[in-house]
Amino acid sequence: MSAPEGFLAAGTTAGLKASGKPDLALIVAPEGAVCAGTFTTSVVRAACVDLCAERLQSAGGRARAVLTNSGQANACTGDRGLIDSLRATQAVADLLGLAAEEVLICSTGVIGVPIPMDTLIGGLDPLVESLSSEGGQAAATAILTTDLVDKQIALEAELGGRRVRIGGIAKGSGMIHPDMATMLGYLSCDAGVPADLWQAMVRRAVQRSFNAITVDGDTSTNDCYLAFAAGEPLGPEHFEALELGLTAVSQHLAKAIARDGEGATCLIEVQVEGATSEAEAISIARTICGSSLVKCAIHGCDPNWGRIVAAAGRAGVAFDPEAVALWLGGFQLMQGGEPLAFDRAGASSYLRGRQAGAYLQDDTVAIRLAVGDGPGRGRAWGCDLSDRYIRINADYTT
Amino acid sequence: MSAPEGFLAAGTTAGLKASGKPDLALIVAPEGAVCAGTFTTSVVRAACVDLCAERLQSAGGRARAVLTNSGQANACTGDRGLIDSLRATQAVADLLGLAAEEVLICSTGVIGVPIPMDTLIGGLDPLVESLSSEGGQAAATAILTTDLVDKQIALEAELGGRRVRIGGIAKGSGMIHPDMATMLGYLSCDAGVPADLWQAMVRRAVQRSFNAITVDGDTSTNDCYLAFAAGEPLGPEHFEALELGLTAVSQHLAKAIARDGEGATCLIEVQVEGATSEAEAISIARTICGSSLVKCAIHGCDPNWGRIVAAAGRAGVAFDPEAVALWLGGFQLMQGGEPLAFDRAGASSYLRGRQAGAYLQDDTVAIRLAVGDGPGRGRAWGCDLSDRYIRINADYTT
Repeated sequence: MSAPEGFLAAGTTAGLKASGKPDLALIVAPEGAVCAGTFTTSVVRAACVDLCAERLQSAGGRARAVLTNSGQANACTGDRGLIDSLRATQAVADLLGLAAEEVLICSTGVIGVPIPMDTLIGGLDPLVESLSSEGGQAAATAILTTDLVDKQIALEAELGGRRVRIGGIAKGSGMIHPDMATMLGYLSCDAGVPADLWQAMVRRAVQRSFNAITVDGDTSTNDCYLAFAAGEPLGPEHFEALELGLTAVSQHLAKAIARDGEGATCLIEVQVEGATSEAEAISIARTICGSSLVKCAIHGCDPNWGRIVAAAGRAGVAFDPEAVALWLGGFQLMQGGEPLAFDRAGASSYLRGRQAGAYLQDDTVAIRLAVGDGPGRGRAWGCDLSDRYIRINADYTT
Repeated sequence: MSAPEGFLAAGTTAGLKASGKPDLALIVAPEGAVCAGTFTTSVVRAACVDLCAERLQSAGGRARAVLTNSGQANACTGDRGLIDSLRATQAVADLLGLAAEEVLICSTGVIGVPIPMDTLIGGLDPLVESLSSEGGQAAATAILTTDLVDKQIALEAELGGRRVRIGGIAKGSGMIHPDMATMLGYLSCDAGVPADLWQAMVRRAVQRSFNAITVDGDTSTNDCYLAFAAGEPLGPEHFEALELGLTAVSQHLAKAIARDGEGATCLIEVQVEGATSEAEAISIARTICGSSLVKCAIHGCDPNWGRIVAAAGRAGVAFDPEAVALWLGGFQLMQGGEPLAFDRAGASSYLRGRQAGAYLQDDTVAIRLAVGDGPGRGRAWGCDLSDRYIRINADYTT
């Protein structure tokens, strides 16, 4: 996150979490930074999300810093939620010499629980003091709640004779502790881009990454992705390359979240092609990723093509069922809308092999579905559904 | 199903199921019967569903009989699917002295497997011979696949000085055997109603029953609900009462399906009030019923209000989060959008009590959510999500 030129980050322990793990993170962008935000579409959203959205809108897509507290989601906390968010950002602004309007805040943790404000405020001095260009790792750790691993990435490219870097961190979607708000993501880039163009690029990247993953179908109250860009203006001829990098970073983080889904033993990647549009392809792919029956079948190493095509059929997208072709890894299961004879034991063994894969190794179950000969193609990611998911979410009593 | 005057039904064993259980059912309606059908919205649907929809449309909502074969869904079977459906209905029509166009067919069972037609045709003679006004029970049994119990009901009312009866049977949604097509339902009524009015009544009843249940979010390729009405025309002053009965029968059958959901230990009923419209209220209620996190929490006896309100927030319906109030059984958990202090042990014990309930006893977890002061109210039904659901759907390999 702090790899791009001029960005600072920090992560510390203020005492907000009962576990004693790091719980406060701060990211500071260089002067003149533009910031694009995408937020949960839930009607029930935390006060901090409202504040971020409002500040970005009234500042025309500009911001300088974002504070993250993990432990309390500050959702469903009434008027106090907004009052606490305002107070926290004012305190950070004072310490950094910024206007409060330039500071954003994201909260993640238990819904319905307010932030212990004295603890948070008390933690700000050491947090600001530890800001550095090497602070990305500490920030990536401090935003976690029940995640098993941190999620970060940095990319570097040569654009127009100069080095451009993009960094990103994210958290989620453990929800091992009930009532957790799931997903947060931050991205930094050291190239200057006009605010409206940056916003459009980020929106497209999010459609192809965070909005294409699903773990359990439950949208959180605090979902938030903030992408900062600041630095020498980049020539328009490099915008396409920049967007490719932006999308790659976003997809890496999104896939890391799906892979770390509760009880998951593998990552599922569904690629749909031949649809009318990319949006329709992603919609079909995400419906397949979200099907409990498909997720269970994959967990059970069952090459169950019927469940995959049935899920595609209910995605709300029109296609010709007789044009359907389906592949699982290297095995073709359907052609012309009908099942093919295939090596069932081999396909099952392919699925078993993905589950045995360790983190970030070859743990990806690849499903490819053709639904016609249209130009639309898109991907989505999810994970399998295991007994452990039920136990994680049923055994814990708030 | 055969309780209403003039209706005949039968259920027999033709040998379509490996288990040797009953697998052929026939329902015959009196001359002049109107028939309203509602079908799966899946793009991938079985040939028999296409045939039913087309015949009902070209006959202006009239039909005389419906054959059901259980064991093979006849979905994703290519041209052969339609050819077999045509042949089966022609054979039934010949035996009953009807035109083929007056006969419908529904199939349920494994996707991608064609019907063993010789076996089916060979079973038609004994099936037709056993038609009787007492055949409802046999038909209710023969349409089952992996259901644990049959689902049937008959209601009787005095309307305009005469007895009117409504009967119904349904199957689903076991899917214990992978690739099962889930839901079939049939309704009979011995009052005459104009076809277009009947269709409108049935459509509304389905919105308030079958379209308001969810077990695992996966829409089947063969879902079908057929409602027949035949008899003395009923005066318009009794239509409202008739629709109430029609809705009650449909809701009973729909709830029976949710209650028999895979691995379920209780029925969940969510009532939403204060929405802008009934459709929006049902939409919020069904989203809550379908949330894996809510289902797991209830299975774990966790009065987890945060998950309920978070699910409501992502239903795609606008409401004021600060107007939210929530009850679980007799316990109020939220008011004015914020959590209340409540008897956590008591609420947990309430949930535990529902799960202990035997079939058709007090096994209903009641959730009531107010989202404002609008006139819209509606209900939806689902079931909890247990380890057994995963094992049922992961352990079996097709």
